[in-house]
Amino acid sequence: MKDIGILGLGVMGRNLALNIAHRGFGVSVYNYTPNETEEFVAKHMQGEDISAFYDVESFVRSLKSPRKIFLMIMAGKPVDNMIEVLIPLLDRGDLIIDGGNTYYFDTDRRMRYLEDKGLLYLGVGVSGGESGALNGPSLMPGGSREAYALVEDILTAMSARTEAGPCCTYVGNGSAGHFVKMLHNGIEYGMMQSMSEVYDIMRNVLKLSADEIGDVFEKWNEGDLNSYLMEISYRIMRKKDDETGKPLVDLILDKAGQKGTGKWTAEASLDLGVPAPSLYVAVYGRVMSFFKDERQRLSELVKKEPSDSVISRDALISDLENSLLFSNFVMYSQGIWLMNEASRVYGFEIDTAEVLKIWKGGCIIRARMLDLLIDIVREDRDNFNLLGSEKALSFLRDRLPSMRRVTMAARDHYVPTLVHNTALDYIFSMIEADLPANLTQAQRDFFGAHTYSRIDKEGIFHTKWE
Amino acid sequence: MKDIGILGLGVMGRNLALNIAHRGFGVSVYNYTPNETEEFVAKHMQGEDISAFYDVESFVRSLKSPRKIFLMIMAGKPVDNMIEVLIPLLDRGDLIIDGGNTYYFDTDRRMRYLEDKGLLYLGVGVSGGESGALNGPSLMPGGSREAYALVEDILTAMSARTEAGPCCTYVGNGSAGHFVKMLHNGIEYGMMQSMSEVYDIMRNVLKLSADEIGDVFEKWNEGDLNSYLMEISYRIMRKKDDETGKPLVDLILDKAGQKGTGKWTAEASLDLGVPAPSLYVAVYGRVMSFFKDERQRLSELVKKEPSDSVISRDALISDLENSLLFSNFVMYSQGIWLMNEASRVYGFEIDTAEVLKIWKGGCIIRARMLDLLIDIVREDRDNFNLLGSEKALSFLRDRLPSMRRVTMAARDHYVPTLVHNTALDYIFSMIEADLPANLTQAQRDFFGAHTYSRIDKEGIFHTKWE
Repeated sequence: MKDIGILGLGVMGRNLALNIAHRGFGVSVYNYTPNETEEFVAKHMQGEDISAFYDVESFVRSLKSPRKIFLMIMAGKPVDNMIEVLIPLLDRGDLIIDGGNTYYFDTDRRMRYLEDKGLLYLGVGVSGGESGALNGPSLMPGGSREAYALVEDILTAMSARTEAGPCCTYVGNGSAGHFVKMLHNGIEYGMMQSMSEVYDIMRNVLKLSADEIGDVFEKWNEGDLNSYLMEISYRIMRKKDDETGKPLVDLILDKAGQKGTGKWTAEASLDLGVPAPSLYVAVYGRVMSFFKDERQRLSELVKKEPSDSVISRDALISDLENSLLFSNFVMYSQGIWLMNEASRVYGFEIDTAEVLKIWKGGCIIRARMLDLLIDIVREDRDNFNLLGSEKALSFLRDRLPSMRRVTMAARDHYVPTLVHNTALDYIFSMIEADLPANLTQAQRDFFGAHTYSRIDKEGIFHTKWE
Repeated sequence: MKDIGILGLGVMGRNLALNIAHRGFGVSVYNYTPNETEEFVAKHMQGEDISAFYDVESFVRSLKSPRKIFLMIMAGKPVDNMIEVLIPLLDRGDLIIDGGNTYYFDTDRRMRYLEDKGLLYLGVGVSGGESGALNGPSLMPGGSREAYALVEDILTAMSARTEAGPCCTYVGNGSAGHFVKMLHNGIEYGMMQSMSEVYDIMRNVLKLSADEIGDVFEKWNEGDLNSYLMEISYRIMRKKDDETGKPLVDLILDKAGQKGTGKWTAEASLDLGVPAPSLYVAVYGRVMSFFKDERQRLSELVKKEPSDSVISRDALISDLENSLLFSNFVMYSQGIWLMNEASRVYGFEIDTAEVLKIWKGGCIIRARMLDLLIDIVREDRDNFNLLGSEKALSFLRDRLPSMRRVTMAARDHYVPTLVHNTALDYIFSMIEADLPANLTQAQRDFFGAHTYSRIDKEGIFHTKWE
């Protein structure tokens, strides 16, 4: 009898199965179609404490009670279908775990549905890609504490580890795990986009080659910008195309794909009324990249006349390092604000510092900056968007001049910097006591009688403007 | 027997009833609760060809066959409830019109539901606020042509008129009318926010008083920026508080409310994969205004050190006029792109030039600029976002230097300009043949094996990066 079953043998499921087996747990595996199972048996299973099954009944029967079945299948309808297949085969108290990038409202719905049938359910965010799945991902489990207790030992053992401990913690109630994983991805979109803006400035304004940019990224990776994304980016810059010997990145088409989690983050921010403009425009950055033909056509019709002001290479690179730190901090600020508001509204009861801790290893947005964020959160747990802290403000204040110079240099050279600009405007808005929304409210009252409040007295007012 | 029934006697329904009666049609009115009806009878109905009813059966019986019932009630559940009340009272071929700010998917659902029962349904966007409703709104009816034919004479007669004709046209199939009205509001959010940014720069950078800003707005209103919003804005700037004699706008609290249509526009742009970052951040501008306490607290913690570079007042005002034209053009570009894509995906069959024509009068975003847009669209109907036109590019090109100076001045003085910045970044992105999305794709392939395309050969590629 095995400790846990992995259902779904795509690259993530395969690697999670091996990871768990390597930590000393017995694993059963099953895939809906036999090909993946055959390939897994032939290529990966030798010497592992893993049993493969070609029918779901035997797979389920091979598991110790209460059974634990980890779904690693495509999010959406396939999860509902597989749950229906499993229900008649399971007993009260058995546990289904969904490790996919599932929309959090779906997780809530499934949790209620299975609870009625006496089954347990966990929605677990899994981050780290292929390699993280095999060697230790960051795991974000959400659901009931009872369900979590059944697999805490396995999840903790298989997760990445940092000096702060395993990259797995009980995130919170209901769909908290999938919500937090979605947010992780939303922040990832933002960080990737801000990095691409900095890359764009280096190649367009400073005319640096991929190799030179790789050198800059590698140096940054030794400092405060140390992160997984920075590490892979300097490796990417150095990678040569086998055929032509050219930097591979220069040959890759500039159309960025997406799989939905960035969009969900943006929608959640609208639903919850939390400002997350930078996470949002990062999605649009990808959307705009998609219209390559249109961009090429228009680029031939507009002559660019970049400013001829002299720019010091070293000074701009130093400014870019600071502007990227500033932007990334803002991305976390917006993401954490959204997490805190979701926790309040949906009753997740998330411990923000714990989530930041499990992001320190295994996942895509792991970064040295998280230590600073954890300090800030621990100092004052009511600091819902990180900004209400002298540490945060001094971090941002120190980098503000760089941020202004970078966004202006981008303007001077026609380089779009959506994430940098919205990050700065977000901070400018949040440190501004008096925004011009008084005009907006006056207009709304003028044409729609929507009323307004006043700064000098209580009440709701409407004016006959004409 | 009356020509049409107005159901719902809030300020919009009341004014629409009077408007229709003034065009020579007989009108019946009914409200779910009697108070509004009593008030309407007492205050507004003298001398009008209007009959008021206190029970819905008599109201329905008072209408000529096929009956036409114009719902002017709160969008959402109340509409569903009222439809259920009406169904047993109506005959095949009768028509229900929803004139609220209804979510377009709801309109599609109701249309199908009522079609099955042999009833006709129109979703009609109504813009123009209180005064438009009374004197002539812009009307955006969508649904079947058969349904539209029943009320074309009434809608056309009651709508605003410009030299181009009535501000009412058959917008398209299904929920096209409510979709277009939502978009109208999304553009309205964007235009209001860009105007508030310009206002903010004038008061913070140039230290102009409300009266002085009113003078600038009035002058702009005589030129290319002529628009309803500009007109009400200069009136707003001049309005004095009765008690204190101070400019009223200076006493209005800077927290802007919203009612959902801006949010829906942003969501639609995500669903349809159309870049609309400026319409989007306009919503966030309002969201951020809401956190007044937090902003006040943070503003005391960050010392602003604006640049001491000398700014010529007249030069900056001239730049602001151009930057507002640029931003507003971009807002239309994003909105029209979204409209065209929705028309393609949802089969609305919208005639863009016709929609722009009915926005020329009655509605909140009526503006002189629409004439330019109509020219551009008529020149090339496949120009889906307006940008693929020499007229458009030269309009933008001429204003680009102003746009750069304005956004830089805002940076120098800590003034948030989310809409201006995203408008410029949108144009910078769309005229850029090579965006840095190649790095994004390389990163996605590195950590998630998401594959990439190449610029030098066909195919889908994956690299073993490590």
